[in-house]
Amino acid sequence: MARSRAKQYAIGVDYGTNSVRALVVDVSDGREVGTCVFNYPSGEHGILLDPKDPNLARQNPADYIEGFCRAVRGAVKAAAKTPGFQADHVIGLGVDTTGSTPLPVDRQGMPLALCSEFKKRLAAQAWLWKDHTSHAEAAEITQRARQSGVPYLAKCGGTYSSEWFWSKVLHCKRSDPKVFEAAYGWVELADFVPGFVTGNLSPETMPRGICAAGHKAMYNDQWGGLPSEEFLASIDPDLVEVRRRYAARAVPSDQKAGNLTAEVAAKVGLRPGIPVAVGNFDAHAGAVGAGIKPGTLVKIIGTSTCDMLVAPMDQALADIPGVCGIVPGSIIPRMYGLEAGQSAVGDIFNWFASRLAPRQYAAKGDAHANLTADAQKLKPGESGLLALDWNNGNRTILVDPLLTGLLVGQTLHTTAPEIYRALVEATAFGALTIIQRFEEYGVAVGEVVNCGGIAEKNPFVMQIYADVCNRPMKISRAAQTCALGAAIFGAVVGGAYPSAELAQKKMTGVKPKVYRPNKTAAAVYAELYALYRRLHDAFGLKNGSGDLYQVMKELIAIRDRVRGK
Amino acid sequence: MARSRAKQYAIGVDYGTNSVRALVVDVSDGREVGTCVFNYPSGEHGILLDPKDPNLARQNPADYIEGFCRAVRGAVKAAAKTPGFQADHVIGLGVDTTGSTPLPVDRQGMPLALCSEFKKRLAAQAWLWKDHTSHAEAAEITQRARQSGVPYLAKCGGTYSSEWFWSKVLHCKRSDPKVFEAAYGWVELADFVPGFVTGNLSPETMPRGICAAGHKAMYNDQWGGLPSEEFLASIDPDLVEVRRRYAARAVPSDQKAGNLTAEVAAKVGLRPGIPVAVGNFDAHAGAVGAGIKPGTLVKIIGTSTCDMLVAPMDQALADIPGVCGIVPGSIIPRMYGLEAGQSAVGDIFNWFASRLAPRQYAAKGDAHANLTADAQKLKPGESGLLALDWNNGNRTILVDPLLTGLLVGQTLHTTAPEIYRALVEATAFGALTIIQRFEEYGVAVGEVVNCGGIAEKNPFVMQIYADVCNRPMKISRAAQTCALGAAIFGAVVGGAYPSAELAQKKMTGVKPKVYRPNKTAAAVYAELYALYRRLHDAFGLKNGSGDLYQVMKELIAIRDRVRGK
Repeated sequence: MARSRAKQYAIGVDYGTNSVRALVVDVSDGREVGTCVFNYPSGEHGILLDPKDPNLARQNPADYIEGFCRAVRGAVKAAAKTPGFQADHVIGLGVDTTGSTPLPVDRQGMPLALCSEFKKRLAAQAWLWKDHTSHAEAAEITQRARQSGVPYLAKCGGTYSSEWFWSKVLHCKRSDPKVFEAAYGWVELADFVPGFVTGNLSPETMPRGICAAGHKAMYNDQWGGLPSEEFLASIDPDLVEVRRRYAARAVPSDQKAGNLTAEVAAKVGLRPGIPVAVGNFDAHAGAVGAGIKPGTLVKIIGTSTCDMLVAPMDQALADIPGVCGIVPGSIIPRMYGLEAGQSAVGDIFNWFASRLAPRQYAAKGDAHANLTADAQKLKPGESGLLALDWNNGNRTILVDPLLTGLLVGQTLHTTAPEIYRALVEATAFGALTIIQRFEEYGVAVGEVVNCGGIAEKNPFVMQIYADVCNRPMKISRAAQTCALGAAIFGAVVGGAYPSAELAQKKMTGVKPKVYRPNKTAAAVYAELYALYRRLHDAFGLKNGSGDLYQVMKELIAIRDRVRGK
Repeated sequence: MARSRAKQYAIGVDYGTNSVRALVVDVSDGREVGTCVFNYPSGEHGILLDPKDPNLARQNPADYIEGFCRAVRGAVKAAAKTPGFQADHVIGLGVDTTGSTPLPVDRQGMPLALCSEFKKRLAAQAWLWKDHTSHAEAAEITQRARQSGVPYLAKCGGTYSSEWFWSKVLHCKRSDPKVFEAAYGWVELADFVPGFVTGNLSPETMPRGICAAGHKAMYNDQWGGLPSEEFLASIDPDLVEVRRRYAARAVPSDQKAGNLTAEVAAKVGLRPGIPVAVGNFDAHAGAVGAGIKPGTLVKIIGTSTCDMLVAPMDQALADIPGVCGIVPGSIIPRMYGLEAGQSAVGDIFNWFASRLAPRQYAAKGDAHANLTADAQKLKPGESGLLALDWNNGNRTILVDPLLTGLLVGQTLHTTAPEIYRALVEATAFGALTIIQRFEEYGVAVGEVVNCGGIAEKNPFVMQIYADVCNRPMKISRAAQTCALGAAIFGAVVGGAYPSAELAQKKMTGVKPKVYRPNKTAAAVYAELYALYRRLHDAFGLKNGSGDLYQVMKELIAIRDRVRGK
């Protein structure tokens, strides 16, 4: 009987943009018992760049393989310091990754980039999520889908992105046909890693995650999986073969991808045969690790945000215009997963602090801290400033990368902390706009749980979010919510819980500190938000009032022409 | 015969905001032979402030009197170093001042502030042009004039300003009735100085300049001089007395105010009896000193701008909406004087350089120079940025102090020099808007002559002005155009020339360096200007397209409420 009471552990492996983290947790409460980060050794901070094309961002697949072994072994070693931990008590493993990050593979499912012939070729590497080389192909796919009257764009906000699977595959064919011809198939990183560590690598038969397929490859059971061969052929006949070599069904992460191979198990210090869950994306895993459930909006706030919700599948759910993705099972199995987000949040603060903070704020210490010290003394509305949070375009609800920032209200007395605060407020207004869009379409937001660096460390920003949204802002208990979410699926496929929901109940939670809205501030922000919406609609909607919609577009067109693009 | 060929000299005395300058020039060619500046000793850089009210700006009239003596004596002394100069060869003297800068005086015309009883009272001092305490009274006068159907606002752009004569007089009555009651009359600084140095100080009979009366006190011969007693009484019956003690006729500056008294002459080292011209305002004198004539726009570019034109009076001239003032004889006698301007130009550059220049631009040397070095490498349109130049409101053509700055087009890569350049371009777009307004109403702008610090010293700004306006930008030859303009009227009343125009022909000119528009740049700026106008109209016009007109207003209303104003 003693054995039945021994602790059980699960491992989550979280592939980020610059590094991979492995996290060992106690399945009874989600507590972290060991972690290890491995920085990708290739390129610049793990990214292969092209000096001639700022849109290009690739990664070396060898980094993923080495990263798995080094990070998991390191985490297991670190966990060994915890009394009672034994590597044999690890019951399951889950994986989450960036995405859409597809890579071309050979017939055996191994990355083309690992053959000496293609080692140096950028097209043969993994196409990192933020690679934007495929913008022409994205526009073409969007146009084709709209013309053909197919429903494929309904679940991804009406516009197909240059960051996504089919755009990238098509751009590979056009920019480096040799690599395209040599590729037997294409797999998402989120599918490749579980496939590799369990030895299920064949493109046709390896388990494919619903998260990547549904959000990035237009997969939906409603229309029988991936887009039809006819539709793909109308764009490029060669896409048909890519479709045929993509498993017919995609499944959620409570399903097993396979069992850890003896070879990999030996390398990482775990017993062979441990169940490995089907992979999903980092933000989706993060939502699980933050305790997402119907009515709980999880905001992952970093350089940009992901705003995630789930909704029961037994109720009708309308398509929500401008929301990036609505995919059954992509977050929690048997629930709709809804993904929205802001293209830049921390990135906007970083832009201002690094490029425009005057000497008195930048000379000593951290510019963010210095600006915050003065910005938090200001009252809402006191500066007379208002900004739009579009320095990197708008992902939700306008789905338009050709939007830019705007600041209004400057006088001759306007100060840097006033502008810094206005930028923070602008991102909060953007966050509120997403909440309102969800609620307009019947998806209630009963609570907001925040995670990510800004949520963890920035009370100034979080209080403004509470005041602007006029809702309490809770903070996820776990610092590594993405890896925890992956570990939760590891715990489920390992048999510790019958479902992700039950695992979440035990393994996730929020911190005692809750940011509660201040009534006076909320009232002023309600007035400012009305003005924000006026700017938002005038500059962001094609049929908005006035003739300002074209202003940002034309400025970008002139800029690109002058720069010779 | 040798005597007839002796050189003749004239003196211009230019009262600025912080100091007074005297300039001795050769009447044959306008060449400077001696100058001296006297800084006002009272208050902060010559301005009396109220820590409780940032709108208040007053000056000690004693500074003006001391300043005249010290500056003129100093300039005459300096001129004495020029071979051939003799103080006896000074034939006339002219005066220009800031305005509207009215001061309450006693029955003899002496400033109330010089009596011990009122010495410490802020209301008894001179009310400096930029004193904005009277905004409520300005709104009241505007409303009353509009309701009464009187034509008084037609010549001042349709809105009476808090900076002007009647607003200030009325605010004195309401805020310090004791001073108002003690005042026998009110005189403009531009009238006070010539009156004082010639001994013609009686409010009722002293010569009043058409420049101050016409631009700031709603004086126009068309309606019989100052606004009617009936109209003034409808605002406040006590204004009637102020009107009665204001000379019935106002005259241009080619008229003599009187002759230098023996007492003052002795103090400054000149002979008694020298003719002194009727005073005018600094910008108007500057236009004269820059060689203004029909078709020549003179731009005085400093912290703000004054844009001056003259038009022959034998042709019909429509009222031009949004142009601050159209006054017969206010610049050149027997011509319409037209005054427009931008509320902030250099002030906007200073705001950015002092408040938002990041460390690498602000740490060493002059931030303006450092920002300019990088900003001038940019091509027009390259930054994708566009700004409105309204950080201090808009004087012409919207005549609205409740407008604020706007910047659009920011990305995560936007740099400080890009913004700095966008702000310079915005002021150039504002300048072009004024030129277009003049031309729309039939006042042709054949050439542009610039003067002031920025015109003299900033080729980067001047080239952008040439490119944006798509016209050559000329620079006035004289560095001290205002004082030169005053001296020109000194030369006229001294008998050296029969008219200001003939004096200008000899005494003014432009520099050899002319900034000529670059065709490529001008083409891009034409596109950007179309977008500027879209923003200008959307945010600046009550009936503009869209519903953005209220955005700046409401931000200011919220700001003032939160600040407890």
